[in-house]
Amino acid sequence: MTYTLILLRHGQSAWNKSNQFTGWVDVPLTEQGIEEAKHGGDLMKEKNVLPDVVFTSLLRRSISTAFYALDHADRLWIPVKRSWRLNERHYGALQGKNKSEIRQEYGDKQFMIWRRSYATPPPEIAVDDEFSQSNDPRYAGEPVPRTEALANVVTRVEPYFENEIKPELKAGKTVLIAAHGNSLRAIVKMLDGLSDEEIAKVNIPTAMPLVYKLDENFKPIVPRGEYLDPEAAAAGAAAVANQGK
Amino acid sequence: MTYTLILLRHGQSAWNKSNQFTGWVDVPLTEQGIEEAKHGGDLMKEKNVLPDVVFTSLLRRSISTAFYALDHADRLWIPVKRSWRLNERHYGALQGKNKSEIRQEYGDKQFMIWRRSYATPPPEIAVDDEFSQSNDPRYAGEPVPRTEALANVVTRVEPYFENEIKPELKAGKTVLIAAHGNSLRAIVKMLDGLSDEEIAKVNIPTAMPLVYKLDENFKPIVPRGEYLDPEAAAAGAAAVANQGK
Repeated sequence: MTYTLILLRHGQSAWNKSNQFTGWVDVPLTEQGIEEAKHGGDLMKEKNVLPDVVFTSLLRRSISTAFYALDHADRLWIPVKRSWRLNERHYGALQGKNKSEIRQEYGDKQFMIWRRSYATPPPEIAVDDEFSQSNDPRYAGEPVPRTEALANVVTRVEPYFENEIKPELKAGKTVLIAAHGNSLRAIVKMLDGLSDEEIAKVNIPTAMPLVYKLDENFKPIVPRGEYLDPEAAAAGAAAVANQGK
Repeated sequence: MTYTLILLRHGQSAWNKSNQFTGWVDVPLTEQGIEEAKHGGDLMKEKNVLPDVVFTSLLRRSISTAFYALDHADRLWIPVKRSWRLNERHYGALQGKNKSEIRQEYGDKQFMIWRRSYATPPPEIAVDDEFSQSNDPRYAGEPVPRTEALANVVTRVEPYFENEIKPELKAGKTVLIAAHGNSLRAIVKMLDGLSDEEIAKVNIPTAMPLVYKLDENFKPIVPRGEYLDPEAAAAGAAAVANQGK
């Protein structure tokens, strides 16, 4: 038995474009992001890698990416499940700030720690900050973080993957996860058994379907998975690595 | 305890525009239909009637209407459930045919029987017809009709409403059903206890949120519910009644 899992990072968002730290702030896709999502769906259809169920975060950029991709893959009708556990990493007090300005103000070293350190989160955001989610109704009854490192994301994604996503894979369903750079990196780290140092170097391009074939123990048959369009994905990952430069 | 149920018929579809019988054929919204759906969402936001959970059919025109409306209502993140039981009435052999041509060919009387008779369905569609859904993967394992009258729609919608939708209402959730002219008429007939003759006269305009406040026995507090924009809804309903003329 082989399981098929498709990871899809959202297309370009308004704040990807304006180079701001986003985290849990609910910004929309740009026109380019919408086109990227549609193209991701076209690829799934062309390569006949068609999801039977889709998981999204609670943020409109992942929900919209799933919508446009599935529309183009002719799979809008599949069941959908959403969870805050698939949200982007909460970027703490950096949410809303310009990446280049933060880099200039705090220097390359601190910038890269906030961006890629496994366990060191940025400073906490104030509860009453305009970019805090402490009073957002979509998280009512859930623990809303005030900052997160990737380690925190792994901690919240892992039980969701175990309890909600694995059962769908075990049932033979092709699963699509439409989510974010860091929630997907958390999943890649788990699946590929990457060290804290190794995951720091992994960059996931926007809206490029990344397909993992998994064995019965949920181990990747091809380590790091396979992009449906490998050339475009390599160029996209380089662009992500260069953000804030 | 009062329950709140919002019914939303999809915006203009490609075949509403070209005046073809649609039924289970999966045609997209037009640009106008997308704008209608967004406006429906704006109304929900403006009137502060905000869904906590959304139900759709398996057809892209209802799924897309829910997407654009919820995007504008800032509620994209709510849980979503989809079912073929909320699909439009299957229009049998009429699917794909032009409404005016059918009216000319068969005459006003037969046309109105197919359109508004409670129990008389159109002729069955051939399994291998280009507009048949007999081999559509989204209905695998489900009974795919080859034609339906409104009575058949009531029969399939009723248990779904009872088993899936009522529990959400009972839990205090505001429920949005994004669906179709006839699956929504089936629900209106049930809620308002309309006779087979009375429901024939009910026309539901596209993409106008229709709000039912229900008492603890699921009886409408205001019979026939209340549109969020009553004037626009009256004009829209008249336009539906005039289709095929």
